[in-house]
Amino acid sequence: MNYEKFYASRVSIMRPSDIRELLKWSLDKSVISFAGGLPDPKLLPKSFELEGLFEYLMMKNEYAFQYGETEGVNELKKEVIRFSKKYGGINANEDEVIITTGSQQALDIVSRLFIDRGNYVIVELPTYLAALQVFNLSEPQYVGIPMDDNGMRTDTLERKLKELNSEGISPKFVYTVPTCQNPSGTSMTVDRRRHLLELASKYDFLIIEDDPYGYITFGDEKMERIKAMDNEGRVIYLSTFSKIFSPGLRVGWAIANEELIRSFAIAKQGMDLSTSPVSQYIALFAMEKGIIEKRIPILIREYKKKRDIMLQSLEDNMPKETKWTKPIGGMFVFVWLKDAIDTKLMLEKAIKNYKVSYVPGKSFFVDGTGKNTMRLNFSYPSEEQIREGIHRLSNLIKAEYNNSF
Amino acid sequence: MNYEKFYASRVSIMRPSDIRELLKWSLDKSVISFAGGLPDPKLLPKSFELEGLFEYLMMKNEYAFQYGETEGVNELKKEVIRFSKKYGGINANEDEVIITTGSQQALDIVSRLFIDRGNYVIVELPTYLAALQVFNLSEPQYVGIPMDDNGMRTDTLERKLKELNSEGISPKFVYTVPTCQNPSGTSMTVDRRRHLLELASKYDFLIIEDDPYGYITFGDEKMERIKAMDNEGRVIYLSTFSKIFSPGLRVGWAIANEELIRSFAIAKQGMDLSTSPVSQYIALFAMEKGIIEKRIPILIREYKKKRDIMLQSLEDNMPKETKWTKPIGGMFVFVWLKDAIDTKLMLEKAIKNYKVSYVPGKSFFVDGTGKNTMRLNFSYPSEEQIREGIHRLSNLIKAEYNNSF
Repeated sequence: MNYEKFYASRVSIMRPSDIRELLKWSLDKSVISFAGGLPDPKLLPKSFELEGLFEYLMMKNEYAFQYGETEGVNELKKEVIRFSKKYGGINANEDEVIITTGSQQALDIVSRLFIDRGNYVIVELPTYLAALQVFNLSEPQYVGIPMDDNGMRTDTLERKLKELNSEGISPKFVYTVPTCQNPSGTSMTVDRRRHLLELASKYDFLIIEDDPYGYITFGDEKMERIKAMDNEGRVIYLSTFSKIFSPGLRVGWAIANEELIRSFAIAKQGMDLSTSPVSQYIALFAMEKGIIEKRIPILIREYKKKRDIMLQSLEDNMPKETKWTKPIGGMFVFVWLKDAIDTKLMLEKAIKNYKVSYVPGKSFFVDGTGKNTMRLNFSYPSEEQIREGIHRLSNLIKAEYNNSF
Repeated sequence: MNYEKFYASRVSIMRPSDIRELLKWSLDKSVISFAGGLPDPKLLPKSFELEGLFEYLMMKNEYAFQYGETEGVNELKKEVIRFSKKYGGINANEDEVIITTGSQQALDIVSRLFIDRGNYVIVELPTYLAALQVFNLSEPQYVGIPMDDNGMRTDTLERKLKELNSEGISPKFVYTVPTCQNPSGTSMTVDRRRHLLELASKYDFLIIEDDPYGYITFGDEKMERIKAMDNEGRVIYLSTFSKIFSPGLRVGWAIANEELIRSFAIAKQGMDLSTSPVSQYIALFAMEKGIIEKRIPILIREYKKKRDIMLQSLEDNMPKETKWTKPIGGMFVFVWLKDAIDTKLMLEKAIKNYKVSYVPGKSFFVDGTGKNTMRLNFSYPSEEQIREGIHRLSNLIKAEYNNSF
């Protein structure tokens, strides 16, 4: 049967992502994969940490296994507020928080609440691919703003906003991952965060602050949340238990003005009624028992070690005319090769001949650039795999450079 | 701050549902609530049934607490296929199944994959409210088909399809809950199911078969699944663990042609990456240990008892000129009062003066009718509450009848 005639027009822009297809390749054990974005499997919740969980769930049986409120389990909202205040400096009350089915669902809600076909949405160059995928379903017009070592170039953003303004165009929101961005690994300075807020006020747009990595930065840099500096209610702050505890729960949270949170809840109700109460109670257990606060220093120590090994291996092995970012946290390093190299074309060779994989960077750029870039993940592979994998990748890149001219 | 200018146009059709607001009232313990749609809290998974679950999750740690494949945990897909075959007569392979975050998410995917603004969608009169809510986000044009004691009037459907056809209109799909429908409690006869399939073939549309209640029918009636009779790949079959095990997991499944399932997966990836692997492994545990198959006869016995008590109480107490359905399973009885009565207007009195609640039926009807109807839930209240609540409700209705003329 031919199903084409039944599909809505938006389906034509839904395409399987590169990352998705790559994840399948990375199942081949002989390939060292820098392609995923998964936490270290050794750092997933351990049996001894979760002791008492079963009894806890049974005690909460009537709530955990039943339908739950769309806004989320109230005690979990309270814990999230406490956590976001203590570690993120964000003040919020219970009407300003909603539990979501991972941050991904929050991005879907943003897509549905704010984007009509053709609306302007501003993103970073590069930006998080799965955000683009779900924004795409509402068919926006993208404006990409370049980044440097200090994050989004807010001076370029300002110029762009003036331009748009002179054409009578008012963007709906700026989407940013300001700390240890996926895919670039860079962080926006506090001055630029403040500048972004000023621009939001002047040009009247919202800011979507997506912050999965802000709680696992490696150094003493204080990455003040944009939401913590937001006096006008312009920032919708998103975070998740995926990186600090477990992605398998699919539990995240959004903090915003209570009117916006009410709209989030109405949209979410149609989408999945509520986030799994079982998952929420597991997150609550981990919060109440202090499991998450105890894990964070361990995650930081282990990921810092891996980042250091990756940066050192890149330093030791990569040929000249290759650049990469120096992330202060998170899970990713972003690499620029010589302009002549197309990392998408190079990928098959990487996997088949060099037994190493990565994500070609082009799909992270809404302006069609980035064909000579790649994203490398350092959280999932082991230390030894990082050393060996970067060695393999460098050999490939050297060979490509030699062939390219 | 005024957020109006940021919202997409579709937001104007998102309104908090009656059911949602009602669920809040039903928290007052002195009110007997027939308004919800929750399983009996006494029938949620018990500690003794789940013995070994913690150890099981820890054994599966690396998968349960990690990111998972969008299509779902493979072993769970296999169990779902086995279950759907054994109890539903449906044949499917692993490429024809996807695990969803409850059936509600599957309805959201249907909304996104198939509905462009203005497309025709056919639903029953009355139909499931949360389906309308999520279809609404894609702004379809509805056609409502009346039901009688044998389910959707497929003769009326056929007439309607001819009419639409003569105007050059081709509906995208018919959405039906063929067995123990929410809200009406009625079931479609097998002859009509066959007729619906014939019409789908003749007029070239898809059928969304939403089947949360089909596994807990009370008698010997064999309610053959429409999907089991589908030779052309026109049926998208949806079911869930919510009624047979636990709604708190938010785990459901869809069965359809593999091309459609691939499209489901692409849409779902943007929506929440995957259904919680933790929840999926709990469902898998319950499947593998036979917990669900052992529960089903108990659920049937207990819900049948409650249905019988509700029907008997209605029989004993309701004034003449009041009709109701006789469901063969599920959780709901639907009631028609005298035409002059508006159940929405009556609700405040019901709660405040008579301490009983229900869902006014009008919002289940896409054609604006049904103002004299109500949905009563019999799965959640206790047997004693059902007797007392129907008594209270009957007293109210008698008083209203006396006032109405």
